[in-house]
Formats: sequence, C-alpha cells, structure tokens
Amino acid sequence: MTDLSRLSLNTATTKSWTLEQAVDGAVRAGLPAVGLWRDRVAEAGLERSARLVADAGLRVSSLCRGGFLTAADDEGRRAAVEDNRAAVVEAATLGTRELIMVVGGLPAASAPGGPALPDGDRDVVAARRRVADRIGELVPFAAEHDVRLVLEPLHPIFAADRAVLSTLGQCLDLAADFPAESVGVVVDTYHVWWDPELRTQIARAGAEGRLASYQVCDWMLPLSADPLLSRGYMGDGYIDFPTITRWVSEAGYTGDVEVEIFRQEIWDAPGDEVVATIADRYVRHVLPSLTAPVRSA
Amino acid sequence: MTDLSRLSLNTATTKSWTLEQAVDGAVRAGLPAVGLWRDRVAEAGLERSARLVADAGLRVSSLCRGGFLTAADDEGRRAAVEDNRAAVVEAATLGTRELIMVVGGLPAASAPGGPALPDGDRDVVAARRRVADRIGELVPFAAEHDVRLVLEPLHPIFAADRAVLSTLGQCLDLAADFPAESVGVVVDTYHVWWDPELRTQIARAGAEGRLASYQVCDWMLPLSADPLLSRGYMGDGYIDFPTITRWVSEAGYTGDVEVEIFRQEIWDAPGDEVVATIADRYVRHVLPSLTAPVRSA
Repeated sequence: MTDLSRLSLNTATTKSWTLEQAVDGAVRAGLPAVGLWRDRVAEAGLERSARLVADAGLRVSSLCRGGFLTAADDEGRRAAVEDNRAAVVEAATLGTRELIMVVGGLPAASAPGGPALPDGDRDVVAARRRVADRIGELVPFAAEHDVRLVLEPLHPIFAADRAVLSTLGQCLDLAADFPAESVGVVVDTYHVWWDPELRTQIARAGAEGRLASYQVCDWMLPLSADPLLSRGYMGDGYIDFPTITRWVSEAGYTGDVEVEIFRQEIWDAPGDEVVATIADRYVRHVLPSLTAPVRSA
Repeated sequence: MTDLSRLSLNTATTKSWTLEQAVDGAVRAGLPAVGLWRDRVAEAGLERSARLVADAGLRVSSLCRGGFLTAADDEGRRAAVEDNRAAVVEAATLGTRELIMVVGGLPAASAPGGPALPDGDRDVVAARRRVADRIGELVPFAAEHDVRLVLEPLHPIFAADRAVLSTLGQCLDLAADFPAESVGVVVDTYHVWWDPELRTQIARAGAEGRLASYQVCDWMLPLSADPLLSRGYMGDGYIDFPTITRWVSEAGYTGDVEVEIFRQEIWDAPGDEVVATIADRYVRHVLPSLTAPVRSA
C-alpha cells in the first residue's frame, strides 16, 4: 500500500524549511496536504502563503496554533483574544476550518525564570474556567469566519506551563457548551496515548462530530531534556498506532493524518529524507488501520 | 501551628541515610512516622528494621513498593508474584497495612537499551489487563497477612516504562473487583495534580474506603533530565497543596502525610536540614488544610 491520499506534512516536522520549501517538498513526495504553523505563514506572508498552497493544489489540514488563554489579568485576556482573532482570520484565509488551540498553562509559568508563583496562580481549576470563558468569547467570531476552534489536550507533562487541558474527555466536556461546527478536538498520539479513557473518548468525539484532526508521532524514551522535543517517527517508540488509528477510524474520522514531530535529529536531517521517512512509517504503521468506517445500511 | 502528629518521613527523601539514621532523624525532628523503602529495609535486615522502628515508637505509614506486574511471559509473571508475596510479608512484619504498588510499564520498556519492542509489547490495554490479573492472584495472600495492595497511579510521563495505571479513577476501577480492605489507592500529588477528575476521584476513593495513603511533594520545572528526580519541596513548584489537601481531608482521610521527594540537591543536603525543611513546608502548605472531616451528626 502506498496510498498517501490522507497524509499531511505538518511544517513543524521540517523546521529548517520555509513554507515554500515545505509546500514543494510535500508535492515532490506526493502528499496532498500540509499542516501549517503561524510563524512560517507570517514569514512568507499570509496572502502569499495561501496562494502558494492553493497553486500547489494542496489542502491545508490545520493551522497551528491559537490558544494561551489562561491569563488572569485584563490586559493578558485582551491580548489573548486579539491574537486568537488574528489566528481565526489566518485560518480562514489559508482555507482551513481547523485552528488547533493549545490553551496555555498556569499563568506565571509562561515566564521562565520569573518570580515565584503567587498562590492564586497555582489554581488549575480556575485556569481551566478562564479557558472556557475565553473560548466562549471567541466562538461567535470563529463561526462568522467558518473556522473551528480545535481544543488540543496536551500530555500532562505540559499541564503547568503549556496546557491545562490534559485529556480528550476534558476537552469534550468543555466543548459541549458550543456547536460542533465551532469547537472540536484533535487527537495527537503523543499527548493522549496513555489515557485509559482514550477509546471511549475518541468514540465520543466522533459521535459528537467534533473529531477535527488526527496527528501522529511516537513517544520516545529516554525523554529529551526539553520534553517538547521527545517525539519521534512512528514505530520508533512506545505508541500502539494500529490500535489508536483503528479507534479513530471507527469513530468515523475520514480527514487527513498529520505528522507533527519536534525532534532535533529530525530537524537536522535533509527535509526530503524526513518526508520520505514519514511516508514510509505512515504506510507501515498507520495506513493499514485507516479504513473508512463501516456505516450501517 | 507546629503539629507534626501526621507527618511521615519517606526514607527515599533522605536517600543518604540508612534506615537506622532515618529513624533517628525522624525522632529528633519530632515526627511520629516513617514510610519505608524495601531496599533500605533489606540493607538493615527485616526483623531488625521492624525492631528499630518499633523501639523508636514510630508508625510505619507505608512500605514502598511492590508491583511491576506487566510481564507477559510465564517466568516474568511467576517472578513478579513471588517478589510481591515477599513484599507483603515484609509489610506485615514491619507493622504497616499499606503496601504501595507501582504496577509497571510496557513489558520491554523495563530493559533500557534493550532491543526494539515487539509489536504486542506496545499494547497498553493488554498490559493493564495483566496488572488486574496479577492483583487478583495476590489479593488472597495479602488478605491473609492483613496487608492492603495500594495501587499508585503514576504521572503519564511514566506510562511507558513504569506504570500503566495513570489516573486515580483507573486505579479505583481496577480496585472495584476486590474488597476495600485488600486493594486501596494512594494520592501522590506529584503524579495526579494535573488530573481534571482529581476532586471527584479523591471523593470516590474516600467513599469507597480505599484512600490508603497521601504523599506530597511538588512538581518542578524545568524537568530534571531524569523526570523521576524532578520533585521538589512543597511550595517550590506548581502544585496547589491547600486545594488538594482539602479534597483529601473532605474525603475522610485521617492518616499520615508522607513526604517523598526524589531530587539530587535534596539527597546531597544534610539529612537533618532536609527533615527540618520538610516539616516547615508541611506546616505552611499542607497542615492548615488538613482538617478532620466534618461528619454529619
């Protein structure tokens, strides 16, 4: 099987490439889609990026990322809403409905080396409430632009400094107050593979029409000094891709499969080599379980 | 408030101390209890350890640890059951009912630098089933010795190599098949602070009579190269001790509070200084929320 018709290259995987190079590389490898990061889009220019991708005949599977919504002060709150509105406009301009949201950690944790946390800043329950409030403020704007806010549960290793949403179930609970067209969820294997509720919550996400994106990469040990960079090629680590991919398929997901790997050795390797490896691993570990769901007649 | 009547020194916190030194240190600092690790007990001898602790008038709040139950082969299974029976006998001899169980990770992950994982070894669902089976085999033996198997959910960062039980809810689901006197759970703040279900599941553990131990230490960033050692003194990191301690108290927990910190700087510091700091942080961050539960009349 060499069917790459659902494989998407997330541009974070080929970090040394500009957006234009990533688009060209995806086309050379026969991939039909790219997942874009806002920094690469900003570099290339928004309108130009949209043109480059469209002219290449590629889909944009998602835009990474909005979020960082946990600020407790008015200024931080306003800045977050403003930045996320900009991200919504960028997603719409680039032609993707799916804006991935990394919601942010405990407020003071975002300033490394900063002063010790005031007591209230350790209140993770309150931080989650602020995320829900900010999502509520953003939903009407996103809906106007036909863009979906896609909540990303991050591995609990990032709960203090990056995302106070740690499980798919928690994201779906938050999403429940909003239409499925406006708030979705993403399954990124690196973040959720360990979750004992994973099968149930993937099925629930599908049933609720909120399964907006499937991102794959492996969990590697030993952890990198920066655990953000501890991802690896599918098959190199501990994640059971056939099983999780089957659950995602059974939930009715028929969209693109994005490969998003942050890892220094992979960033240091030639981009075309990386894309070839991604395609090979996708075909071996993911594609065989990526069946269209069986629908009852 | 300087009431240390529920503070227990886990011997892993003062790693350079022998069991005898730890017992003496706890007594000097006015602590009424110690949590013991099997390696220190083995060094000192089991009967002698029991005598040392009893003669000092200390309680043993728990024995760490049994577990590592995920082996898929017959030999590994037999060895695990045998080792855990020995741990049960040790707990009974030392005079504690609570044997902390770290259940083990994916089978091949326990051999660092070993060969790549066979495909079946990535099946975390099957590994969890094996844990449940082994617990079932051990329960009658533990009950005979009046020892409780205390399931420890470990932070998902350790799901691949150390414990396929990652949440308190998951441990309680597993425990549900067994009497509360034989299978309990431990709340270790380092492992569970991020869990969106934490309040609910602590209350459930209390209601079910399974809340067997409360261990405290903080979540520090940046992570240590070995994330096992990324713990810190309460108040130095990101965990909201007043809130979690209140939940534990409201669940009816009236037992000891064990301080268990693995951290190189703390291991390198003089033991008496470490114990003094523990007592100070306990009094400031934990004790004020450690009220006896309000019982309905």
